[in-house]
Amino acid sequence: MHGLGQRARQASQEMAVADTAIKNRALLAIADALETDRSQLKFVNTRDLDAGRERGLDAAMLDRLELTDDRIDAMIEGLRQVAALPDPIGTIDDMKYVPNGVQVGKMRVPLGVIGIIYESRPNVTVEAASLCLKSGNAVILRGGSESIHSNQAIARCIQQGLAQAELPEDAVQVVETVDRAAVGVLITMPEYVDVIVPRGGKGLIERISAEARVPVIKHLDGICHVYLDDRADHAKAVRIAINAKTHRYGVCNAMETLLVHQNVAQPLLRELSGLYSQKGVELRGCPVTCEILPNAVAATEDDWSAEYLGPVLAIKVVLDMDEAIAHINRYGSHHTDAIVTEDFTRARRFLREVDSSSVMVNASTRFADGFEYGLGAEIGISTDKIHARGPVGLEGLTSQKYVVLGDGHIRQ
Amino acid sequence: MHGLGQRARQASQEMAVADTAIKNRALLAIADALETDRSQLKFVNTRDLDAGRERGLDAAMLDRLELTDDRIDAMIEGLRQVAALPDPIGTIDDMKYVPNGVQVGKMRVPLGVIGIIYESRPNVTVEAASLCLKSGNAVILRGGSESIHSNQAIARCIQQGLAQAELPEDAVQVVETVDRAAVGVLITMPEYVDVIVPRGGKGLIERISAEARVPVIKHLDGICHVYLDDRADHAKAVRIAINAKTHRYGVCNAMETLLVHQNVAQPLLRELSGLYSQKGVELRGCPVTCEILPNAVAATEDDWSAEYLGPVLAIKVVLDMDEAIAHINRYGSHHTDAIVTEDFTRARRFLREVDSSSVMVNASTRFADGFEYGLGAEIGISTDKIHARGPVGLEGLTSQKYVVLGDGHIRQ
Repeated sequence: MHGLGQRARQASQEMAVADTAIKNRALLAIADALETDRSQLKFVNTRDLDAGRERGLDAAMLDRLELTDDRIDAMIEGLRQVAALPDPIGTIDDMKYVPNGVQVGKMRVPLGVIGIIYESRPNVTVEAASLCLKSGNAVILRGGSESIHSNQAIARCIQQGLAQAELPEDAVQVVETVDRAAVGVLITMPEYVDVIVPRGGKGLIERISAEARVPVIKHLDGICHVYLDDRADHAKAVRIAINAKTHRYGVCNAMETLLVHQNVAQPLLRELSGLYSQKGVELRGCPVTCEILPNAVAATEDDWSAEYLGPVLAIKVVLDMDEAIAHINRYGSHHTDAIVTEDFTRARRFLREVDSSSVMVNASTRFADGFEYGLGAEIGISTDKIHARGPVGLEGLTSQKYVVLGDGHIRQ
Repeated sequence: MHGLGQRARQASQEMAVADTAIKNRALLAIADALETDRSQLKFVNTRDLDAGRERGLDAAMLDRLELTDDRIDAMIEGLRQVAALPDPIGTIDDMKYVPNGVQVGKMRVPLGVIGIIYESRPNVTVEAASLCLKSGNAVILRGGSESIHSNQAIARCIQQGLAQAELPEDAVQVVETVDRAAVGVLITMPEYVDVIVPRGGKGLIERISAEARVPVIKHLDGICHVYLDDRADHAKAVRIAINAKTHRYGVCNAMETLLVHQNVAQPLLRELSGLYSQKGVELRGCPVTCEILPNAVAATEDDWSAEYLGPVLAIKVVLDMDEAIAHINRYGSHHTDAIVTEDFTRARRFLREVDSSSVMVNASTRFADGFEYGLGAEIGISTDKIHARGPVGLEGLTSQKYVVLGDGHIRQ
């Protein structure tokens, strides 16, 4: 692992000063290599799938592991999209003259070496590599042991693309060993790795955060709320409450708890209950909710901090917006929370007082996403406050340095 | 310590939404309290000084510990300056409509609770508290045991100011115990502390970085370089090389190694040598330097990565700018490095390729400072790349959250 780290550090110095055109050429060459190797990729992938079935992986795991034609198409398309994005590196912002006479500005630079640790989905190999490459970083990829053959085959395509653009092949390295101890080493060598991005289940992320000696850009829970205010437009409230819960269940920006102002709880909950029933959503309510909705089961204290990632919804009727905000800041995971209201002052207060990475007015929590926000790409969503918060695009993989221009200026 | 943390977390929620005018009122009231308690502060400070003398602290430590009238004036003036700075909290940047129809922007928010760990200088208590307060954070201050009485007296002034502005007194807490284990607890409770800023010697900072379970904004070494190119203006080269080394010795942005292009080494080093001699600067040179300057002693490998913090300078004659950049990126501490040249293309390359938190052309490294850069304040200089890099002002104590405004928008 230390050799890997050393080579990555070396490659990162070349990557940091690589021209945009060369980085784009590599991305497009990788896309071409994937197209050329398509049948080989699918063949190798069947080895991982067979091994996975033997090891008794469940259907969901096997599904994530599979490289279908559609997924290979998506990888290729993704590479082309990243090539088309503006290059953040070298951008100089806020250049200005300061009173001592020099000019001071900030230039965007790569972080250096990024370690990505992920599970099962081999397409992450391409996604993560392309974002690190475009942002001028070197990357060390550590996928799950269950997708090792697929990842190695994809890595060969990436190496080809890098070689064609005459970029260092060590700019993207895939950890070959399936030894779990390798992860422990990867996250504890700050001399070679500048930041770790874990992508996967909560268990993986908690373990890595606890043991890392390197900064971690991470996302833990997505316990998202929608608060329906008594000054909400009824139709918007219903539309957003349904979309935030039922558009997709297994995603971090799906609503897990619905908060409703007491004055509008009766009409809203009755209408929503019917719609949720049609979609097969189980409702768990506070005592007032259960009075209004006979089909709701009583929520326990645990329900207020549950991330169901499925067709279950906790519902609480609140006295007013203050109670809603207090509930969100206490039980939420500081990910994404929305208010539905037509009241200007309340909207303004909600935006200020809710302490989450995305705070919304009259919009579905499902919008919390790098692509929806116009970042053009997403390496993950951060629920931390340090460095990057919310959806993390190319900029989250960069830092800034001060540039100072003078004409022989000295400090007095 | 956990009780302290819990109270800080609680207070941070009130601080995050406090009006700018109220925060400023608190800052000015603290300044008034320091003025009123001036003689009391000096009296209490003598207790720390007496105890320090008994414990055999050296003269430099005792000097840093002393609260003179000038230093109290500076604390008061500092508070008034921070009150006059624009409030970063609540600022919304980059608000724009995105293709799905919603508006997306970023609002600046406080980090939450900041832990500051520092040694001897009691004026840090006021400096750190004022910056945390203005940026809407709660702060836990842990000063050195040698300044405990001075820090407590200053803390009482801060409490008075907070109370007068009706802000929670727990927004600024001073750790009362001199037990060293308290630091170990403070840096390992991520549930209550969002970031640690250590200020002090390298030993302190290394120990904290190694043991912290909380992000650390830190500054380790300042091994700064000036490279005199063969296309440098002679007068500018001399002026900057003298200023960067001799303006002040014990500071992190002082030059520690001078690199000189071989074509101009003779005339530049001969002139500089005389000027350095006048100032009593000891020169340690590479073999070529020692040939040119008989008064230079031979540098060892260790000299290239030494932070002298005193009147000693390492000098190396290089073949060209490539060697200079390679030397800086290898031996430097990624703090601040400067080139002196009139060559446009080389200036442009140096800015891009040197991997330091501040990179300069034709200016003294001594400018690397929050006040000189126009930040209005400085909590420290970060040599990390994550979150904040270079001089850290109020903005480094903040994060951003996404705000999303819609009109009933749902994800398709």
